[in-house]
Formats: sequence, structure tokens, C-alpha cells
Amino acid sequence: MESLLRYSASAPNVIAIGGGLPAAELFPRKRFAAAFLHAMREPGCRALQYDWPEGHDVLRSWVAERLRARGAEVSADEVIMTSGAQQGLSLAAQALFTKGSHVGVEPETYPAALELFRRLGAALVVGAQAVTAHYVVDGILNPRGQSLPAATRARLLASGQPLIVDEAYAELAFSGALPRPLIADARDRAFHVGTLSKTLSPGLRVGWLVPPRQLVKRVIELKQTADLQTSSIGQSVAECLLAHDDYDKRLEHERQFYQRRAEALIRAVERWLPEWRFGRPEGGFSIYVETDAALPADKTELAWLRAAVGHGVSFDPGSLFRSDRAERPFAMRLCYSATPPRKLLEAVRRLATAWAEFRA
Amino acid sequence: MESLLRYSASAPNVIAIGGGLPAAELFPRKRFAAAFLHAMREPGCRALQYDWPEGHDVLRSWVAERLRARGAEVSADEVIMTSGAQQGLSLAAQALFTKGSHVGVEPETYPAALELFRRLGAALVVGAQAVTAHYVVDGILNPRGQSLPAATRARLLASGQPLIVDEAYAELAFSGALPRPLIADARDRAFHVGTLSKTLSPGLRVGWLVPPRQLVKRVIELKQTADLQTSSIGQSVAECLLAHDDYDKRLEHERQFYQRRAEALIRAVERWLPEWRFGRPEGGFSIYVETDAALPADKTELAWLRAAVGHGVSFDPGSLFRSDRAERPFAMRLCYSATPPRKLLEAVRRLATAWAEFRA
Repeated sequence: MESLLRYSASAPNVIAIGGGLPAAELFPRKRFAAAFLHAMREPGCRALQYDWPEGHDVLRSWVAERLRARGAEVSADEVIMTSGAQQGLSLAAQALFTKGSHVGVEPETYPAALELFRRLGAALVVGAQAVTAHYVVDGILNPRGQSLPAATRARLLASGQPLIVDEAYAELAFSGALPRPLIADARDRAFHVGTLSKTLSPGLRVGWLVPPRQLVKRVIELKQTADLQTSSIGQSVAECLLAHDDYDKRLEHERQFYQRRAEALIRAVERWLPEWRFGRPEGGFSIYVETDAALPADKTELAWLRAAVGHGVSFDPGSLFRSDRAERPFAMRLCYSATPPRKLLEAVRRLATAWAEFRA
Repeated sequence: MESLLRYSASAPNVIAIGGGLPAAELFPRKRFAAAFLHAMREPGCRALQYDWPEGHDVLRSWVAERLRARGAEVSADEVIMTSGAQQGLSLAAQALFTKGSHVGVEPETYPAALELFRRLGAALVVGAQAVTAHYVVDGILNPRGQSLPAATRARLLASGQPLIVDEAYAELAFSGALPRPLIADARDRAFHVGTLSKTLSPGLRVGWLVPPRQLVKRVIELKQTADLQTSSIGQSVAECLLAHDDYDKRLEHERQFYQRRAEALIRAVERWLPEWRFGRPEGGFSIYVETDAALPADKTELAWLRAAVGHGVSFDPGSLFRSDRAERPFAMRLCYSATPPRKLLEAVRRLATAWAEFRA
């Protein structure tokens, strides 16, 4: 499956609507260039030198301020800059899990988090049971693009158990409304994870982790043994860009941009793939479509992906998002983020043709 | 101790000759700026987008070619770009060690590797015993700045055991001579680690790991769960810079630059700290000085560092480099890399004054 996805990501005749990439059109290239030139002129050139493992103080303050504005008691020295949100998850997981731990997860969730927990020997549990800790994508869910149900939030807070809260897509809710961060009501047991990957650039590898206070020192040690520090270049460029840019205005523009693409994809799926149901996205990069179509056992998910690629389109197979890797009901994550509307329509038409053939 | 080292690194009245930083004067800022502007103009702007976990193909080829030129059979698809050498060590250690593993190490070695192995629950063993794997800094040793003794190389190859080979400083041997890489004679069990941190910029966070062939796939998975990928910006900038720069000529210049600083430090230590012995450095950033001066038990290493900082100078305490953290014999890593000769002289004079007082 992986080799097929890799092939389709770069094959010129395949429209890949998986992957969860931000739109390259939105990268503020000129501002990045100006920020980099500025960093190269700085005496001592901090952007090219070693930094402390916890990262640039100005960025740590920026993260803390934004969390405080949302009601969480977070100070700059409790923020650890990480190599993307993924490393934030990895450090939190290392601090919490050992072989035999139990991780509570949503029925569908971010695949690289599932892989991380599996690698540490932790068991994945769906539902409200007692666990070592819960992992949850808050703000906007991946892959569904919807907000976390209030009942789930209440259940997680009532559990009294440690939480790993992944806000990778939170700032891209179409409404612009951010939930009260879970860390605000679980300061002593929530690991809060955020990133600039979806809103500025994943190539920066600049994310952050706010651990419970009593674990800050330990997590900084884990960060140091992992990779010494987050890229100084990435941090210096981000710092300079945020200082000279209206980040919230940028977010507003990005939300409108992605909402237009979401609507194009929705219209196409509703028209061409009526057998596939999905919930209307409230933000993020993707929808998660499922079908109850009855299929014989030999019609595997891999066969379906292969059929689609044969028709010039690829998607993220639904099983990747499930803790038990179940193939039924058939599901796909379809990303609208990195594909222009006309191409999205063409991709869905190809999917429809492939599906009609595959089902037959 | 850590808070004292952090204080002294930024206190304006303290000359810090620890830390192992490259000289900021050597950063090719203009070339970095040109490379970044070039990357921003690229269609699709790969520098700002997601990349595959194993990294940029051009860099992987560059690493493989340089290893092949030194006699190792390495192809580009066996190279994994990492977030600095430290992540290369971390991925190799994750692939090799679990709680209860034994790691063979040299009597003095790189502290962040020791911390990494300790964190994984591995026991550190000095000498020729049977171990899970050996960790060794090849080329130029850290902290001694000398080459790995031929007898040690022979012993490691004869052991038949897995090797983690850290070549972080290898290209900075003053003679310009690189040893035959250990991976050339232990292809099926050596993890080869390298980096651009010492020669171009640590802020890039661009290093690499070449695992044994049978483990490449597994290590790429570990890399993906750790942080998805190495910074695209760092990789794109490095790729562009290496394409337009004569890297080997740059190395030649850097070796001469660091050798001049090494000689300044040596002269000062020989003159002002006659009680401290050391081996002449053959490359790298530092020397490791030791004294057999008899000191009462209450004269701790921390007290000595505190005394030195009181006199306006700091160093890396010798115990950091020892697997058993022993404070005796008293030792210091003194780095000449990031301090101009005149300031090195002043630092050593301050050390001499502090030492005379401390011993009394």
C-alpha cells in the first residue's frame, strides 16, 4: 500500500487527493525570504548557531500568550519548541507510555500518532475505558474535519486521566472560533501540542509542546537526547515572520481559501459519489467518506486503491486512521487542501468511474 | 551545574570556552542567503512543503557518493537524512537498545550520546567486553580532538558486534585525512552517522544515518514517528549551497582556521596551566585537559566550576564525558572553536588565577 501511495504522489497522470498537504499557493514566500535575509544579517547569526533544547524565547512567549488569551495558564518557560507537532506527540508519548500502556483514541484519528503509540508497545483503546492517557485531536479533527463533540470533551475532562491534545488544525476552523483549550481545565495532566505546519509551512518543522508543569524539565531532557534542538533556521525565520506579519489576518484568508476548496469537493462527492456519506467539514484539510456498500471479502482496500490509481486518482485509505486497521466499512480521507477546485472535480469523477467498475 | 553553565554561556563578563560551538565567523551567510532565495523561487516551493521521512534525494546521493569515495558500499536509498547527528544516534539507539542492553563506550566521549543511552535504560561499559553494540566517535574524538587509535578500530572491527559510528568531527582533522569509514568493513552491522553541523551550520539540523541494509526500512519508520521528516528548509538550503559551493575547499579553510585557534589555546595552557596535561589535538573543536593534583574530597568539580565562573571563565566539566560521571582526576573540555585567540589567552589566564586560588 505504501509503495502505491508513494508512486501516486508523484506520478504525473495521477491526481493525489491524500497526504494532507497545505496549499503551496498560500506559502508567504516573499515574507519568508525577507525573514531569512534579516536572520542572516543578525550579529552572531543565531539562525545558523546552536540553540538551547527548549528553543527560541520569543516563540515560546508567542505560544504562551496565545494560549493565555484562550484561558490557559501557560508561561513562556513551560513551552518547548519541537520539530513539528509530531515530535511534540513523540516526546509526550515517551514521557507517558511504556510497553503495556493503554492509550485512549477516537474511532478515527491521525495515523502517525497511532504508529507512534504502537511503536512504544502501547495498546490502542477506543471508548471511555480507564487508560494510561488519552490522545485527542482538538479544534478540528483529522480526518473528519469536524469539531470535537462537546460530550467527548466533557468525558475527557471528567476522566481525570492524562491527555495528549493535538491542535494541529485548530486554527483552521472555517468559523475562526477556537475551543477553550483542554489544557486550560487540565493544566496538571494535559500535554498541549501545536504547530505552524498547517498555517505557515510544514518545511519549517516548528511546533510546540506544553507539558504538565512538573514534567517540563524531564521533557526538555527527552528533547535534547532526541535531536538537541529544533532547527534554528526554522525558528529564526518563524520568529521574524511572525513579528512582521499579521498572523491572525493570514489565518482568516487561509480559512476562506480552504473553505472554498472544501465546498468544491463536497459538491463533487455529493454529485458523483452518492454511495459515500460524510459529515460536513468545519475546517482543516479533509473529509472522511464512508460507504455501506456490501462488498465481497476479496474486494480489499488495497485492490480498491489500485483500481483508483489505475483511473488516475489516489486517496488516503480509511484503514490508516483506525486503531484496529479495519477495512470495513470502506472509507477514504479525501483532502481538498492542496488541489485546485477544477482538479478536485476531475479527481472525484475519476473516483466515480473507478468505483462503478470496482463494485461491478 | 547545568544552571551555572547556562548562566555562564550568556553572562557578558564570562568567557565561555565550553559548548563545542562552531565559529560564527565561518558561517557562509551570503551563500546561505542566496540558497534560500533560490529555494523560494522554485515551483511548488519544496523548501516549505512536506517531504518524505528519508529526506531529499540529492542530499542522500551526496552522502552516499562521499562514503563510496572512501571505500564504503553505500547507495543513496540507504541514507536517511536526520535532524542533526544527534537524531542519527537516537534512531540507531532505538533500533538497537532496550532496557538492560549494554553499550560499549570509550573512557571519555560525547555527553549527549551517553545521556541518550542512559535514557533508554542501557548500561554503559568501558573496554572490550561483549556488549549489545559499541558507540564510537571516529575520525576526530570528542572531547580529546585526537584520532581513534588504530588498536581500538581493530578491536571494534574484530568484535563482530554492532557499531554506532559518529563522524561528527571527522572532516575537521587538521591534516585533511579521513580514515577508512568503519562502515566500509562492517556494512551489515555499522550505523554510520554524519552531519553538516560542524562544517556548515548546526542551525540547519541536517545530519544523516546509514543503517545496516536490513534495517533501513525500520529506521525510516522510526524517523517518521519521531518527527515525520528533517526540516525541508534546512535540506533545500543545504542542497543548493552544496551545489554551488566547493565544499572540500571550504573544509580546507576551516581546518586552517581551527588549527590556528587550537595552537593559541595550546600555547596558553602550556604556559599558564602547567599542572594540566593533554594530548595534542589533531582536529575538531576542543582539547581535554586533566590534572593529577591531589585535592581534598570537599573540592568538588561543581565548586571548581563555580570558582572559575567567579573569575569570569567557564568550561565543560570533565565528568560530563565519562560514563560513570567520575570527578577524579579533575578534567575539563576546553573549546577553542568559537573564541578568538586573544580571548582564549585571557580565558586561560583567568582559569590559572582561579585554579591557584582553588588549590590553595
